[in-house]
Amino acid sequence: MKVRRSERLIDMTQYLLEHPRTLISLTFFVKRYGAAKSSISEDLGIVKKTFHERGTGILETIAGAAGGVQFIPSISEEEAHATILSLCDRLSESDRLLPGGYVYLSDLLGEPSLLRKIGQIIAAKYKDQEIDAVMTVATKGVPIAQAVSYHLNVPFVIVRRDSKITEGSTVSVNYVSGSSQRIEKMELSKRSLKRGSRVLVVDDFMKGGGTVNGMTGLIEEFEAELVGITVFAESSFSGRRVVDDYQSLLCVEEVDTHTKTIKVVPGTYFDK
Amino acid sequence: MKVRRSERLIDMTQYLLEHPRTLISLTFFVKRYGAAKSSISEDLGIVKKTFHERGTGILETIAGAAGGVQFIPSISEEEAHATILSLCDRLSESDRLLPGGYVYLSDLLGEPSLLRKIGQIIAAKYKDQEIDAVMTVATKGVPIAQAVSYHLNVPFVIVRRDSKITEGSTVSVNYVSGSSQRIEKMELSKRSLKRGSRVLVVDDFMKGGGTVNGMTGLIEEFEAELVGITVFAESSFSGRRVVDDYQSLLCVEEVDTHTKTIKVVPGTYFDK
Repeated sequence: MKVRRSERLIDMTQYLLEHPRTLISLTFFVKRYGAAKSSISEDLGIVKKTFHERGTGILETIAGAAGGVQFIPSISEEEAHATILSLCDRLSESDRLLPGGYVYLSDLLGEPSLLRKIGQIIAAKYKDQEIDAVMTVATKGVPIAQAVSYHLNVPFVIVRRDSKITEGSTVSVNYVSGSSQRIEKMELSKRSLKRGSRVLVVDDFMKGGGTVNGMTGLIEEFEAELVGITVFAESSFSGRRVVDDYQSLLCVEEVDTHTKTIKVVPGTYFDK
Repeated sequence: MKVRRSERLIDMTQYLLEHPRTLISLTFFVKRYGAAKSSISEDLGIVKKTFHERGTGILETIAGAAGGVQFIPSISEEEAHATILSLCDRLSESDRLLPGGYVYLSDLLGEPSLLRKIGQIIAAKYKDQEIDAVMTVATKGVPIAQAVSYHLNVPFVIVRRDSKITEGSTVSVNYVSGSSQRIEKMELSKRSLKRGSRVLVVDDFMKGGGTVNGMTGLIEEFEAELVGITVFAESSFSGRRVVDDYQSLLCVEEVDTHTKTIKVVPGTYFDK
Protein backbone atom coordinates (compact mmCIF):
# COMPACT_ATOMS: atom_id res chain seq x y z
CA MET A 1 0.00 0.00 0.00
CA LYS A 2 1.35 3.38 -0.96
CA VAL A 3 1.20 6.12 1.60
CA ARG A 4 1.01 9.80 0.71
CA ARG A 5 3.82 12.14 1.65
CA SER A 6 1.78 14.05 4.20
CA GLU A 7 0.92 10.85 6.03
CA ARG A 8 4.48 9.62 5.79
CA LEU A 9 5.79 12.82 7.37
CA ILE A 10 3.35 12.57 10.27
CA ASP A 11 4.04 8.92 11.00
CA MET A 12 7.78 9.32 10.47
CA THR A 13 7.87 12.18 12.97
CA GLN A 14 5.95 10.07 15.46
CA TYR A 15 8.24 7.08 14.92
CA LEU A 16 11.44 9.10 15.26
CA LEU A 17 10.25 10.85 18.44
CA GLU A 18 9.37 7.50 20.00
CA HIS A 19 12.75 6.03 19.10
CA PRO A 20 15.34 8.60 20.15
CA ARG A 21 19.02 7.74 19.61
CA THR A 22 18.13 4.65 17.62
CA LEU A 23 19.62 4.02 14.22
CA ILE A 24 16.80 3.46 11.73
CA SER A 25 17.61 2.29 8.23
CA LEU A 26 16.03 3.92 5.20
CA THR A 27 14.87 0.45 4.18
CA PHE A 28 12.70 0.32 7.28
CA PHE A 29 10.78 3.39 6.13
CA VAL A 30 10.75 2.18 2.51
CA LYS A 31 8.93 -0.96 3.66
CA ARG A 32 6.72 0.80 6.16
CA TYR A 33 5.33 3.17 3.54
CA GLY A 34 5.84 1.27 0.30
CA ALA A 35 7.67 4.28 -1.07
CA ALA A 36 10.83 4.70 -3.14
CA LYS A 37 14.11 5.27 -1.34
CA SER A 38 14.47 8.65 -3.01
CA SER A 39 11.09 9.78 -1.66
CA ILE A 40 12.03 8.63 1.86
CA SER A 41 15.31 10.53 1.61
CA GLU A 42 13.43 13.63 0.62
CA ASP A 43 10.95 13.17 3.49
CA LEU A 44 13.78 12.83 5.98
CA GLY A 45 15.35 15.99 4.62
CA ILE A 46 12.18 17.93 5.40
CA VAL A 47 11.93 16.37 8.88
CA LYS A 48 15.58 17.23 9.56
CA LYS A 49 15.12 20.84 8.54
CA THR A 50 11.95 21.26 10.62
CA PHE A 51 13.43 19.59 13.72
CA HIS A 52 16.47 21.83 13.42
CA GLU A 53 14.47 25.04 12.98
CA ARG A 54 12.13 24.29 15.89
CA GLY A 55 14.87 23.15 18.26
CA THR A 56 13.30 19.68 18.51
CA GLY A 57 16.65 18.03 17.93
CA ILE A 58 19.08 16.82 15.34
CA LEU A 59 18.32 14.20 12.72
CA GLU A 60 21.70 12.65 12.04
CA THR A 61 22.27 10.91 8.75
CA ILE A 62 24.69 7.99 8.70
CA ALA A 63 25.77 7.09 5.16
CA GLY A 64 26.63 3.66 3.81
CA ALA A 65 25.07 0.21 3.75
CA ALA A 66 24.72 0.01 7.53
CA GLY A 67 23.54 3.60 7.65
CA GLY A 68 20.27 5.32 8.29
CA VAL A 69 19.01 8.13 10.46
CA GLN A 70 19.12 8.76 14.15
CA PHE A 71 17.12 11.33 16.09
CA ILE A 72 19.02 13.14 18.85
CA PRO A 73 16.47 15.02 21.00
CA SER A 74 17.31 18.49 22.18
CA ILE A 75 15.68 21.64 23.44
CA SER A 76 16.30 25.20 22.36
CA GLU A 77 18.38 27.28 24.78
CA GLU A 78 15.49 29.73 24.87
CA GLU A 79 13.01 27.09 26.03
CA ALA A 80 15.46 25.62 28.55
CA HIS A 81 16.01 29.08 29.96
CA ALA A 82 12.29 29.85 30.18
CA THR A 83 11.64 26.52 31.92
CA ILE A 84 14.34 27.13 34.51
CA LEU A 85 13.22 30.70 35.18
CA SER A 86 9.65 29.56 35.74
CA LEU A 87 10.98 26.86 38.09
CA CYS A 88 12.82 29.54 40.08
CA ASP A 89 9.48 31.26 40.63
CA ARG A 90 7.70 28.09 41.60
CA LEU A 91 10.42 26.97 43.99
CA SER A 92 10.34 30.36 45.69
CA GLU A 93 6.70 29.95 46.76
CA SER A 94 6.76 30.42 50.53
CA ASP A 95 4.43 27.49 51.27
CA ARG A 96 7.16 25.14 50.05
CA LEU A 97 9.14 25.87 53.18
CA LEU A 98 9.27 22.87 55.49
CA PRO A 99 10.50 22.66 59.09
CA GLY A 100 14.30 22.57 59.18
CA GLY A 101 14.59 24.80 56.12
CA TYR A 102 13.80 22.02 53.63
CA VAL A 103 11.98 22.84 50.41
CA TYR A 104 9.00 20.77 49.24
CA LEU A 105 9.66 19.46 45.72
CA SER A 106 7.53 16.33 45.41
CA ASP A 107 4.71 17.98 43.46
CA LEU A 108 7.09 19.24 40.78
CA LEU A 109 8.80 15.85 40.54
CA GLY A 110 5.41 14.27 39.87
CA GLU A 111 4.41 16.52 36.96
CA PRO A 112 4.89 14.58 33.75
CA SER A 113 5.15 17.54 31.38
CA LEU A 114 7.70 19.27 33.59
CA LEU A 115 9.71 16.06 33.98
CA ARG A 116 9.80 15.70 30.24
CA LYS A 117 11.37 19.15 29.92
CA ILE A 118 13.83 18.50 32.75
CA GLY A 119 14.82 15.30 30.94
CA GLN A 120 15.32 17.17 27.67
CA ILE A 121 17.34 19.91 29.36
CA ILE A 122 19.70 17.54 31.18
CA ALA A 123 20.05 15.14 28.23
CA ALA A 124 20.83 18.04 25.89
CA LYS A 125 23.93 18.84 27.95
CA TYR A 126 25.33 15.36 27.35
CA LYS A 127 24.18 14.90 23.78
CA ASP A 128 27.71 14.61 22.39
CA GLN A 129 28.92 12.18 25.02
CA GLU A 130 28.75 8.45 25.11
CA ILE A 131 26.60 7.33 28.04
CA ASP A 132 25.57 3.77 28.90
CA ALA A 133 23.45 4.29 32.00
CA VAL A 134 21.88 6.94 34.20
CA MET A 135 22.27 6.40 37.95
CA THR A 136 20.25 7.88 40.77
CA VAL A 137 19.28 7.14 44.36
CA ALA A 138 15.78 6.19 45.53
CA THR A 139 13.22 7.69 45.77
CA LYS A 140 13.04 11.25 44.57
CA GLY A 141 15.85 10.96 42.05
CA VAL A 142 13.96 8.28 40.12
CA PRO A 143 11.61 10.53 38.12
CA ILE A 144 14.56 12.64 36.99
CA ALA A 145 16.64 9.61 36.03
CA GLN A 146 13.74 8.17 34.08
CA ALA A 147 13.12 11.41 32.18
CA VAL A 148 16.80 11.79 31.28
CA SER A 149 17.21 8.15 30.34
CA TYR A 150 14.31 8.38 27.94
CA HIS A 151 15.97 11.12 25.92
CA LEU A 152 19.37 9.42 26.00
CA ASN A 153 17.80 6.02 25.27
CA VAL A 154 19.83 4.23 27.92
CA PRO A 155 18.66 2.36 31.02
CA PHE A 156 18.62 3.93 34.47
CA VAL A 157 19.67 2.19 37.66
CA ILE A 158 18.41 2.92 41.14
CA VAL A 159 20.73 2.92 44.14
CA ARG A 160 18.95 2.16 47.41
CA ARG A 161 19.55 2.96 51.03
CA ASP A 162 17.59 -0.09 52.13
CA SER A 163 18.26 -3.58 50.90
CA LYS A 164 15.42 -5.47 49.22
CA ILE A 165 15.19 -9.16 48.49
CA THR A 166 13.88 -8.39 45.03
CA GLU A 167 17.23 -6.88 44.01
CA GLY A 168 19.30 -10.06 44.30
CA SER A 169 22.98 -9.72 45.22
CA THR A 170 24.11 -6.15 45.76
CA VAL A 171 27.31 -4.18 46.10
CA SER A 172 27.29 -1.63 48.89
CA VAL A 173 29.39 1.35 49.91
CA ASN A 174 29.47 3.51 53.01
CA TYR A 175 29.44 7.24 52.61
CA VAL A 176 29.43 10.28 54.83
CA SER A 177 26.30 12.35 54.58
CA GLY A 178 27.72 15.80 53.91
CA SER A 179 25.18 17.74 55.91
CA SER A 180 24.73 15.51 58.97
CA GLN A 181 28.23 13.97 58.97
CA ARG A 182 26.67 10.58 59.72
CA ILE A 183 27.92 7.43 58.04
CA GLU A 184 25.30 5.85 55.81
CA LYS A 185 25.16 2.89 53.47
CA MET A 186 23.87 2.61 49.91
CA GLU A 187 23.73 -0.35 47.59
CA LEU A 188 23.10 -1.31 44.02
CA SER A 189 21.99 -4.60 42.54
CA LYS A 190 25.06 -6.37 41.21
CA ARG A 191 23.57 -7.21 37.86
CA SER A 192 22.26 -3.76 37.13
CA LEU A 193 25.50 -2.22 35.90
CA LYS A 194 28.13 -3.70 33.58
CA ARG A 195 31.82 -3.19 34.17
CA GLY A 196 33.17 -0.34 32.11
CA SER A 197 29.79 1.40 31.74
CA ARG A 198 29.87 5.14 31.27
CA VAL A 199 27.52 6.56 33.88
CA LEU A 200 25.67 9.85 34.27
CA VAL A 201 24.61 10.58 37.88
CA VAL A 202 21.44 12.62 38.51
CA ASP A 203 19.60 13.48 41.70
CA ASP A 204 16.87 15.79 42.91
CA PHE A 205 18.73 17.79 45.51
CA MET A 206 22.30 18.32 46.62
CA LYS A 207 23.40 19.93 49.83
CA GLY A 208 26.76 18.68 51.07
CA GLY A 209 27.15 16.29 48.15
CA GLY A 210 27.47 13.18 50.35
CA THR A 211 24.84 11.16 48.49
CA VAL A 212 26.28 12.00 45.10
CA ASN A 213 29.73 11.18 46.41
CA GLY A 214 28.43 7.82 47.58
CA MET A 215 27.22 7.11 44.06
CA THR A 216 30.60 7.95 42.57
CA GLY A 217 32.05 5.45 45.09
CA LEU A 218 29.63 2.81 43.83
CA ILE A 219 30.64 3.57 40.24
CA GLU A 220 34.25 2.83 41.22
CA GLU A 221 33.21 -0.41 42.91
CA PHE A 222 31.56 -1.48 39.66
CA GLU A 223 34.71 -0.49 37.73
CA ALA A 224 32.52 1.83 35.74
CA GLU A 225 33.23 5.38 34.68
CA LEU A 226 31.64 8.63 35.81
CA VAL A 227 30.69 10.88 32.87
CA GLY A 228 28.98 13.70 34.75
CA ILE A 229 26.73 14.77 37.60
CA THR A 230 23.62 16.91 37.25
CA VAL A 231 21.22 17.72 40.07
CA PHE A 232 17.81 19.33 39.78
CA ALA A 233 18.53 21.74 42.64
CA GLU A 234 21.46 22.52 44.87
CA SER A 235 21.45 24.59 48.00
CA SER A 236 24.18 26.95 48.98
CA PHE A 237 26.25 25.07 51.51
CA SER A 238 28.46 26.63 54.14
CA GLY A 239 30.67 23.58 54.74
CA ARG A 240 33.14 22.05 52.35
CA ARG A 241 31.39 20.21 49.56
CA VAL A 242 32.70 16.72 48.83
CA VAL A 243 31.78 17.01 45.13
CA ASP A 244 32.83 19.93 42.99
CA ASP A 245 32.42 18.91 39.37
CA TYR A 246 28.66 18.97 38.86
CA GLN A 247 25.85 20.92 37.25
CA SER A 248 22.60 22.12 38.74
CA LEU A 249 19.46 23.45 37.10
CA LEU A 250 18.49 25.49 40.15
CA CYS A 251 20.20 26.93 43.19
CA VAL A 252 18.37 27.55 46.45
CA GLU A 253 20.45 30.52 47.56
CA GLU A 254 18.71 31.47 50.75
CA VAL A 255 16.07 30.00 53.00
CA ASP A 256 14.75 32.15 55.81
CA THR A 257 12.42 30.21 58.09
CA HIS A 258 11.71 33.38 60.04
CA THR A 259 10.36 35.52 57.21
CA LYS A 260 9.30 32.41 55.29
CA THR A 261 11.17 33.31 52.15
CA ILE A 262 13.05 31.09 49.73
CA LYS A 263 15.36 32.62 47.17
CA VAL A 264 15.96 30.45 44.12
CA VAL A 265 18.16 31.36 41.15
CA PRO A 266 19.28 29.41 38.07
CA GLY A 267 22.02 26.87 38.83
CA THR A 268 25.31 26.29 37.07
CA TYR A 269 23.68 24.73 33.98
CA PHE A 270 24.06 27.81 31.82
CA ASP A 271 27.55 28.72 33.05
CA LYS A 272 30.07 28.66 30.25
CA MET B 1 6.47 33.98 8.49
CA LYS B 2 4.56 31.43 6.48
CA VAL B 3 5.35 27.79 6.98
CA ARG B 4 4.82 25.12 4.35
CA ARG B 5 2.30 22.36 4.89
CA SER B 6 4.93 19.61 5.15
CA GLU B 7 6.76 21.49 7.89
CA ARG B 8 3.50 22.28 9.65
CA LEU B 9 2.54 18.61 9.72
CA ILE B 10 5.90 17.59 11.21
CA ASP B 11 5.91 20.27 13.88
CA MET B 12 2.21 19.79 14.66
CA THR B 13 2.76 16.07 15.17
CA GLN B 14 5.68 16.79 17.46
CA TYR B 15 3.69 19.37 19.41
CA LEU B 16 0.65 17.13 19.84
CA LEU B 17 2.73 14.14 20.96
CA GLU B 18 4.50 16.30 23.55
CA HIS B 19 1.20 17.66 24.86
CA PRO B 20 -1.08 14.65 25.32
CA ARG B 21 -4.57 15.26 26.71
CA THR B 22 -4.17 19.01 26.41
CA LEU B 23 -6.75 21.14 24.64
CA ILE B 24 -5.00 23.18 21.97
CA SER B 25 -6.92 25.88 20.15
CA LEU B 26 -6.76 26.22 16.39
CA THR B 27 -5.71 29.81 16.95
CA PHE B 28 -2.54 28.57 18.62
CA PHE B 29 -1.51 26.77 15.44
CA VAL B 30 -2.70 29.64 13.24
CA LYS B 31 -0.28 31.94 15.08
CA ARG B 32 2.51 29.38 15.28
CA TYR B 33 2.58 28.87 11.53
CA GLY B 34 1.09 32.10 10.16
CA ALA B 35 -1.42 30.01 8.24
CA ALA B 36 -5.15 30.38 7.60
CA LYS B 37 -7.57 28.63 9.92
CA SER B 38 -8.87 26.55 7.03
CA SER B 39 -5.38 25.26 6.25
CA ILE B 40 -4.81 24.35 9.91
CA SER B 41 -8.14 22.49 9.97
CA GLU B 42 -7.10 20.56 6.89
CA ASP B 43 -3.70 19.74 8.45
CA LEU B 44 -5.35 18.47 11.61
CA GLY B 45 -7.65 16.29 9.52
CA ILE B 46 -4.63 14.58 7.94
CA VAL B 47 -2.96 14.16 11.35
CA LYS B 48 -6.17 12.72 12.78
CA LYS B 49 -6.49 10.20 9.98
CA THR B 50 -2.85 9.09 10.20
CA PHE B 51 -2.89 8.78 13.99
CA HIS B 52 -6.04 6.71 13.74
CA GLU B 53 -4.71 4.40 11.03
CA ARG B 54 -1.40 3.79 12.80
CA GLY B 55 -2.92 3.26 16.24
CA THR B 56 -0.99 6.27 17.61
CA GLY B 57 -4.13 7.61 19.26
CA ILE B 58 -7.19 9.72 18.77
CA LEU B 59 -7.19 13.37 17.80
CA GLU B 60 -10.40 14.68 19.32
CA THR B 61 -11.95 17.78 17.87
CA ILE B 62 -13.89 20.02 20.22
CA ALA B 63 -16.09 22.48 18.33
CA GLY B 64 -17.05 25.99 19.37
CA ALA B 65 -15.27 29.17 20.50
CA ALA B 66 -13.51 27.43 23.41
CA GLY B 67 -12.76 24.43 21.21
CA GLY B 68 -9.70 22.99 19.63
CA VAL B 69 -8.03 19.62 19.41
CA GLN B 70 -6.82 17.17 21.99
CA PHE B 71 -4.53 14.22 21.44
CA ILE B 72 -5.45 11.04 23.34
CA PRO B 73 -2.50 8.62 23.12
CA SER B 74 -3.20 4.98 22.56
CA ILE B 75 -1.58 1.81 21.30
CA SER B 76 -2.93 -0.73 18.86
CA GLU B 77 -4.18 -3.96 20.46
CA GLU B 78 -1.75 -5.79 18.19
CA GLU B 79 1.25 -3.87 19.51
CA ALA B 80 0.08 -4.18 23.13
CA HIS B 81 -0.26 -7.90 22.66
CA ALA B 82 3.16 -8.28 21.06
CA THR B 83 4.77 -6.27 23.87
CA ILE B 84 3.16 -8.40 26.56
CA LEU B 85 4.07 -11.67 24.84
CA SER B 86 7.69 -10.61 24.54
CA LEU B 87 7.62 -9.66 28.22
CA CYS B 88 6.38 -13.16 29.08
CA ASP B 89 9.47 -14.55 27.40
CA ARG B 90 11.82 -12.14 29.10
CA LEU B 91 10.31 -12.73 32.55
CA SER B 92 10.65 -16.47 32.10
CA GLU B 93 14.45 -16.29 31.80
CA SER B 94 15.72 -18.62 34.50
CA ASP B 95 18.46 -16.28 35.71
CA ARG B 96 15.75 -13.91 36.98
CA LEU B 97 14.99 -16.34 39.76
CA LEU B 98 16.07 -15.00 43.16
CA PRO B 99 16.27 -16.80 46.50
CA GLY B 100 12.81 -17.19 48.00
CA GLY B 101 11.18 -17.53 44.60
CA TYR B 102 11.27 -13.80 43.80
CA VAL B 103 11.67 -12.65 40.22
CA TYR B 104 14.20 -9.98 39.28
CA LEU B 105 12.45 -7.12 37.46
CA SER B 106 14.63 -4.08 38.05
CA ASP B 107 16.33 -4.17 34.66
CA LEU B 108 13.00 -4.12 32.80
CA LEU B 109 11.71 -1.30 34.98
CA GLY B 110 14.76 0.74 34.02
CA GLU B 111 14.38 0.44 30.24
CA PRO B 112 12.96 3.68 28.92
CA SER B 113 11.50 2.36 25.66
CA LEU B 114 9.79 -0.52 27.43
CA LEU B 115 8.43 1.79 30.12
CA ARG B 116 7.00 4.01 27.44
CA LYS B 117 5.06 1.08 26.01
CA ILE B 118 3.91 -0.09 29.44
CA GLY B 119 2.67 3.45 30.05
CA GLN B 120 0.80 3.47 26.74
CA ILE B 121 -0.74 0.07 27.39
CA ILE B 122 -2.00 0.90 30.88
CA ALA B 123 -3.14 4.41 29.97
CA ALA B 124 -5.04 3.06 26.95
CA LYS B 125 -7.22 0.99 29.27
CA TYR B 126 -8.38 4.12 31.10
CA LYS B 127 -8.58 6.46 28.14
CA ASP B 128 -12.32 7.04 28.52
CA GLN B 129 -12.21 7.63 32.27
CA GLU B 130 -11.61 10.77 34.19
CA ILE B 131 -8.44 10.46 36.23
CA ASP B 132 -6.79 13.17 38.34
CA ALA B 133 -3.74 11.36 39.68
CA VAL B 134 -1.75 8.15 39.47
CA MET B 135 -0.66 6.65 42.79
CA THR B 136 2.10 4.16 43.49
CA VAL B 137 4.37 3.06 46.29
CA ALA B 138 8.15 3.63 46.41
CA THR B 139 10.46 2.48 44.87
CA LYS B 140 9.78 0.10 42.02
CA GLY B 141 6.28 1.35 41.27
CA VAL B 142 7.62 4.82 40.45
CA PRO B 143 8.81 4.17 36.87
CA ILE B 144 5.43 2.65 36.00
CA ALA B 145 3.48 5.49 37.58
CA GLN B 146 5.59 8.03 35.74
CA ALA B 147 5.11 6.32 32.38
CA VAL B 148 1.35 6.05 32.85
CA SER B 149 0.99 9.59 34.14
CA TYR B 150 2.75 10.93 31.09
CA HIS B 151 0.20 9.45 28.73
CA LEU B 152 -2.73 10.51 30.91
CA ASN B 153 -1.17 13.94 31.50
CA VAL B 154 -1.91 13.89 35.23
CA PRO B 155 0.52 14.02 38.17
CA PHE B 156 1.68 10.93 40.02
CA VAL B 157 2.07 10.66 43.77
CA ILE B 158 4.45 8.37 45.64
CA VAL B 159 3.40 6.59 48.82
CA ARG B 160 6.33 5.74 51.08
CA ARG B 161 7.03 3.16 53.70
CA ASP B 162 9.57 5.41 55.40
CA SER B 163 8.85 8.94 56.47
CA LYS B 164 11.05 11.71 55.11
CA ILE B 165 11.38 15.26 56.36
CA THR B 166 11.26 16.51 52.79
CA GLU B 167 7.64 15.40 52.44
CA GLY B 168 6.16 17.73 55.07
CA SER B 169 3.07 16.57 56.96
CA THR B 170 1.86 13.15 55.96
CA VAL B 171 -1.20 10.94 56.40
CA SER B 172 -0.43 7.34 57.25
CA VAL B 173 -2.30 4.04 57.29
CA ASN B 174 -1.46 0.61 58.60
CA TYR B 175 -1.99 -2.36 56.37
CA VAL B 176 -1.49 -6.08 56.53
CA SER B 177 1.09 -7.40 54.14
CA GLY B 178 -0.85 -10.14 52.37
CA SER B 179 2.03 -12.55 51.97
CA SER B 180 3.80 -12.18 55.33
CA GLN B 181 0.74 -11.22 57.42
CA ARG B 182 2.82 -8.56 59.15
CA ILE B 183 1.40 -5.14 59.94
CA GLU B 184 3.17 -2.37 58.05
CA LYS B 185 2.76 1.36 57.70
CA MET B 186 2.67 3.57 54.61
CA GLU B 187 2.25 7.28 54.27
CA LEU B 188 1.62 10.00 51.75
CA SER B 189 2.45 13.68 51.89
CA LYS B 190 -0.69 15.55 52.89
CA ARG B 191 -0.45 18.15 50.19
CA SER B 192 0.13 15.72 47.37
CA LEU B 193 -3.50 14.68 46.81
CA LYS B 194 -6.61 16.86 46.74
CA ARG B 195 -9.85 15.73 48.32
CA GLY B 196 -12.17 14.21 45.74
CA SER B 197 -9.38 13.28 43.33
CA ARG B 198 -10.02 10.32 41.07
CA VAL B 199 -7.03 8.03 41.49
CA LEU B 200 -5.53 5.23 39.44
CA VAL B 201 -3.31 2.87 41.45
CA VAL B 202 -0.37 1.15 39.74
CA ASP B 203 2.42 -1.03 41.09
CA ASP B 204 5.15 -3.32 39.84
CA PHE B 205 4.18 -6.57 41.50
CA MET B 206 1.21 -7.96 43.42
CA LYS B 207 1.24 -11.10 45.49
CA GLY B 208 -1.29 -11.05 48.33
CA GLY B 209 -2.47 -7.54 47.43
CA GLY B 210 -1.62 -6.06 50.84
CA THR B 211 0.34 -3.10 49.48
CA VAL B 212 -2.32 -2.23 46.94
CA ASN B 213 -4.94 -2.58 49.64
CA GLY B 214 -2.96 -0.17 51.82
CA MET B 215 -3.06 2.37 49.00
CA THR B 216 -6.82 2.07 48.66
CA GLY B 217 -6.97 2.74 52.41
CA LEU B 218 -4.92 5.89 51.91
CA ILE B 219 -7.24 6.98 49.11
CA GLU B 220 -10.14 6.73 51.57
CA GLU B 221 -8.21 8.73 54.16
CA PHE B 222 -7.77 11.48 51.59
CA GLU B 223 -11.48 11.30 50.75
CA ALA B 224 -10.46 10.56 47.21
CA GLU B 225 -11.89 8.02 44.82
CA LEU B 226 -10.35 4.85 43.43
CA VAL B 227 -10.79 4.52 39.66
CA GLY B 228 -8.82 1.34 39.06
CA ILE B 229 -5.80 -0.78 39.88
CA THR B 230 -3.29 -2.10 37.37
CA VAL B 231 -0.12 -3.97 38.23
CA PHE B 232 2.74 -4.84 35.94
CA ALA B 233 2.88 -8.43 37.17
CA GLU B 234 0.92 -10.56 39.60
CA SER B 235 1.85 -13.92 40.93
CA SER B 236 -0.57 -16.73 41.48
CA PHE B 237 -1.34 -16.63 45.19
CA SER B 238 -2.58 -19.56 47.23
CA GLY B 239 -4.05 -17.52 50.09
CA ARG B 240 -7.06 -15.25 49.94
CA ARG B 241 -6.27 -12.07 48.08
CA VAL B 242 -7.38 -8.86 49.77
CA VAL B 243 -7.92 -7.10 46.42
CA ASP B 244 -9.99 -8.58 43.64
CA ASP B 245 -10.84 -5.81 41.22
CA TYR B 246 -7.56 -5.19 39.41
CA GLN B 247 -5.78 -5.76 36.12
CA SER B 248 -2.36 -7.18 35.45
CA LEU B 249 -0.20 -7.15 32.36
CA LEU B 250 1.60 -10.35 33.31
CA CYS B 251 0.99 -13.32 35.55
CA VAL B 252 3.82 -15.33 37.09
CA GLU B 253 2.00 -18.65 37.20
CA GLU B 254 4.67 -20.90 38.53
CA VAL B 255 8.10 -20.55 40.05
CA ASP B 256 10.13 -23.66 40.65
CA THR B 257 13.33 -22.92 42.55
CA HIS B 258 14.36 -26.54 42.17
CA THR B 259 14.32 -26.76 38.38
CA LYS B 260 14.93 -23.02 38.11
CA THR B 261 11.96 -22.40 35.89
CA ILE B 262 9.57 -19.46 35.84
CA LYS B 263 6.32 -19.69 33.92
CA VAL B 264 4.87 -16.33 32.90
CA VAL B 265 1.65 -15.80 30.95
CA PRO B 266 -0.32 -12.68 29.97
CA GLY B 267 -2.29 -11.24 32.88
CA THR B 268 -5.92 -10.17 33.04
CA TYR B 269 -5.39 -7.09 30.86
CA PHE B 270 -6.86 -8.66 27.74
CA ASP B 271 -9.72 -10.44 29.53
CA LYS B 272 -13.10 -9.23 28.33
